[in-house]
Amino acid sequence: MERSMFNSLLLPDLRFMLDESDGPGLKEFCEALHPGVAAEVLEGLDAPVAWQVLTHCEPRTQAEIFQFISLPYQVQLVESIDPSQLTRLIEQMSPDDRVDLLERMDTGEVDALMPLLAQAQRSDIRKLLSYPDDSAGSIMTTEYASLPADITVAEALQRLRLQAPSRETIYYIYITDEDRHLRGFLSLRDLILAKPEARLEGLMETDVISVRVDDDQEHVAREISRYDFIAIPVVDNQNRLVGIVTHDDAADVLSEEATEDQQRLGAVEPLEDSYLQTALWILVWKRGIWLVILLGASFLTAWIIRIFFDDGGGSLWMMKFLPLVLASGGNAGSQSATLIIRALALRETNQGDARHICLRELLLGSLLGAGLAVLSAVIAWGLVDYAWQAGVVGTTVFLVVTLGTTVGAMLPVWFKWIGVDPALMSNPLIAALSDMIGVIIFFNVAQLAAPPS
Amino acid sequence: MERSMFNSLLLPDLRFMLDESDGPGLKEFCEALHPGVAAEVLEGLDAPVAWQVLTHCEPRTQAEIFQFISLPYQVQLVESIDPSQLTRLIEQMSPDDRVDLLERMDTGEVDALMPLLAQAQRSDIRKLLSYPDDSAGSIMTTEYASLPADITVAEALQRLRLQAPSRETIYYIYITDEDRHLRGFLSLRDLILAKPEARLEGLMETDVISVRVDDDQEHVAREISRYDFIAIPVVDNQNRLVGIVTHDDAADVLSEEATEDQQRLGAVEPLEDSYLQTALWILVWKRGIWLVILLGASFLTAWIIRIFFDDGGGSLWMMKFLPLVLASGGNAGSQSATLIIRALALRETNQGDARHICLRELLLGSLLGAGLAVLSAVIAWGLVDYAWQAGVVGTTVFLVVTLGTTVGAMLPVWFKWIGVDPALMSNPLIAALSDMIGVIIFFNVAQLAAPPS
Repeated sequence: MERSMFNSLLLPDLRFMLDESDGPGLKEFCEALHPGVAAEVLEGLDAPVAWQVLTHCEPRTQAEIFQFISLPYQVQLVESIDPSQLTRLIEQMSPDDRVDLLERMDTGEVDALMPLLAQAQRSDIRKLLSYPDDSAGSIMTTEYASLPADITVAEALQRLRLQAPSRETIYYIYITDEDRHLRGFLSLRDLILAKPEARLEGLMETDVISVRVDDDQEHVAREISRYDFIAIPVVDNQNRLVGIVTHDDAADVLSEEATEDQQRLGAVEPLEDSYLQTALWILVWKRGIWLVILLGASFLTAWIIRIFFDDGGGSLWMMKFLPLVLASGGNAGSQSATLIIRALALRETNQGDARHICLRELLLGSLLGAGLAVLSAVIAWGLVDYAWQAGVVGTTVFLVVTLGTTVGAMLPVWFKWIGVDPALMSNPLIAALSDMIGVIIFFNVAQLAAPPS
Repeated sequence: MERSMFNSLLLPDLRFMLDESDGPGLKEFCEALHPGVAAEVLEGLDAPVAWQVLTHCEPRTQAEIFQFISLPYQVQLVESIDPSQLTRLIEQMSPDDRVDLLERMDTGEVDALMPLLAQAQRSDIRKLLSYPDDSAGSIMTTEYASLPADITVAEALQRLRLQAPSRETIYYIYITDEDRHLRGFLSLRDLILAKPEARLEGLMETDVISVRVDDDQEHVAREISRYDFIAIPVVDNQNRLVGIVTHDDAADVLSEEATEDQQRLGAVEPLEDSYLQTALWILVWKRGIWLVILLGASFLTAWIIRIFFDDGGGSLWMMKFLPLVLASGGNAGSQSATLIIRALALRETNQGDARHICLRELLLGSLLGAGLAVLSAVIAWGLVDYAWQAGVVGTTVFLVVTLGTTVGAMLPVWFKWIGVDPALMSNPLIAALSDMIGVIIFFNVAQLAAPPS
């Protein structure tokens, strides 16, 4: 089911239960649904209301649901929770998700929170926080199942039962010595198939594929995917087991890296959050920086054209700026198309958001267009004979960027709507369409502005 | 470790063992390494030699290694295997991987092979082959663990032991009735934590999240990733369990879909295999088709410019074609950059292949350039006053496309080599660089070709 379907089915029920203060109903909502479904429905509510729903269940269930909520919304939620409840929630979260949240919170809030946590958790958090961003250490969890080598299968199963409730996975079992050196590996399948009296040292694989705690997270994720692992062990430089990275976190990393690459390819500085969760001024910055760099390149092209050309009067001056005005529209349009196509593929947005996206991109396009227009008019002044010509360049850039941004965002949405793959709206195709519109705008603006001859 | 590191470490040893006909050594190579590692090393050998290595181990181990080999190489390997050995190998493969291979083989070979397989396997294959491409049915496996609801935990563990050796996973257990209707779900973790005398019907979750056999594979993969599942059950339209899709296959689907989207965004028809495994003529076709469409759009732009312009003589005729020649280079360059950047991200290629990539793209660029040059010279003829001007357009397109293709491929490789993210070479940046080069080429070709005035 699509995201919106859950919301439209369950949200009204939930609001009704809230209005009626139906405690048992709200408790059932939290416990009966898959935590991922509950999380999605809750994100449709205001943060304080969502937290009110969660107060009806145990901290353990709270944490399970909470972990499926997107980070920006988690941060909002945290502000509605009083310190003692927040402490209990955070203690129940898995170590990797907990650290991701703390990294996004105000340092002031975190400093206030830390003394309330148990000593063991505090040092676990400090350790995980100390690993560099994008390293194996930053995505691993410390809740792995491990056993010594010199016990029997029957004993191992007994001990696993004790570990199971608090471990991220018990399907992969790591064999360590007393100093936590990684000695071997066993799957729960191996264990179940083995004779109860067999010893683990005779069963375990000793050639364990592992990653280092400072390895890049993308490397870790690719290793997991390459060997079809459920989890991979993470060791320090003395081969001591310090954590595991699980397949679901690896899949998230690969998806994030693909998103980053796609955004970079479309000349957008990678966004931290989803397209719709990113504030407008951040988009202006992450797109504007590249548009300015590309504008610089276009002025180099204009300058090269000027070398080859003696201005012959008439409309010939426009030739210098033709590649520039066309590229501005194409670049802005490619950025929009790239962002929207990825958001559609990740189901972060759908056709229902069309109106919202259109208005947002129109606003964004005019902001970016205005900035680039001023910049290009000022620089163009140095390359033209008459001031009005610089004005024509600036005006055209403004119109072309505004239009390119909006059209580049709406075409993929429209493609999706008529059942065609939005990704067919490739960057070169957006650029080609923008070229046609750009030419028409450029010549019309020039004709309007040119003094009568 | 990187792909190439395994090869350089293990390949010499392997060749030595082959030269010495060291049977026990070759057997150990197959059995001691992770099958994914063994597969990678084998891909460094010629297919008949690789098969010779595999003959030293059991069909079960053969199949495990074989399943980690890339599809195009699997197809090559199959041609070196005699029918009786091939039958045994295929019988040992997991149903989903087996069907993927059969779909890629010659229909003649498949028809010859089918009668040799056991009846049960034959009907399993026919069924899986009948599901549409890109559906849940096409990526699922039929080897799932299932149990009835009315048995105890102790009995369940006993039965699971019998199922375990042949099932893709036993960590997720599906509860079905006698007609295979999906009634509930249990994880092995739940089972291990439960009392031995408890009955499954009291333990199982009854609200099972499943997908339909005709759901799109991307939808299935997103569901798995959304709920952090190890596997998801696939049901038919009567809610009967027909298979499962596992997390590793889901990760592959998401990676393929991201690759497809990225290639489409770069105006390349998605490739079936990796960049280096794709034949040159396929690349010519999958890139050429889009370049021709984009050239058509550029001619529309040229035609629009012509409407606004009275040709004023001198170099003014060039203005019409300026966007066209610049776009041709930018488009071809974006295609190359897109393909190489994705191949680098997926580690399908690395800097070591730089020379090979350069020559290949140079050849490809000149083929594409020649085709587009002829096409654009012919069409341009209709828009110019003198034939030599059409010649200038054609020649420029040839040079710009050839250069754009090569530079677009090499810049990301060079970025990787100096330790910068190759994805920074965005489509708009490639287009901007290509604009500068394009202008210089265009004007120089025109100056050389213009009759003395």
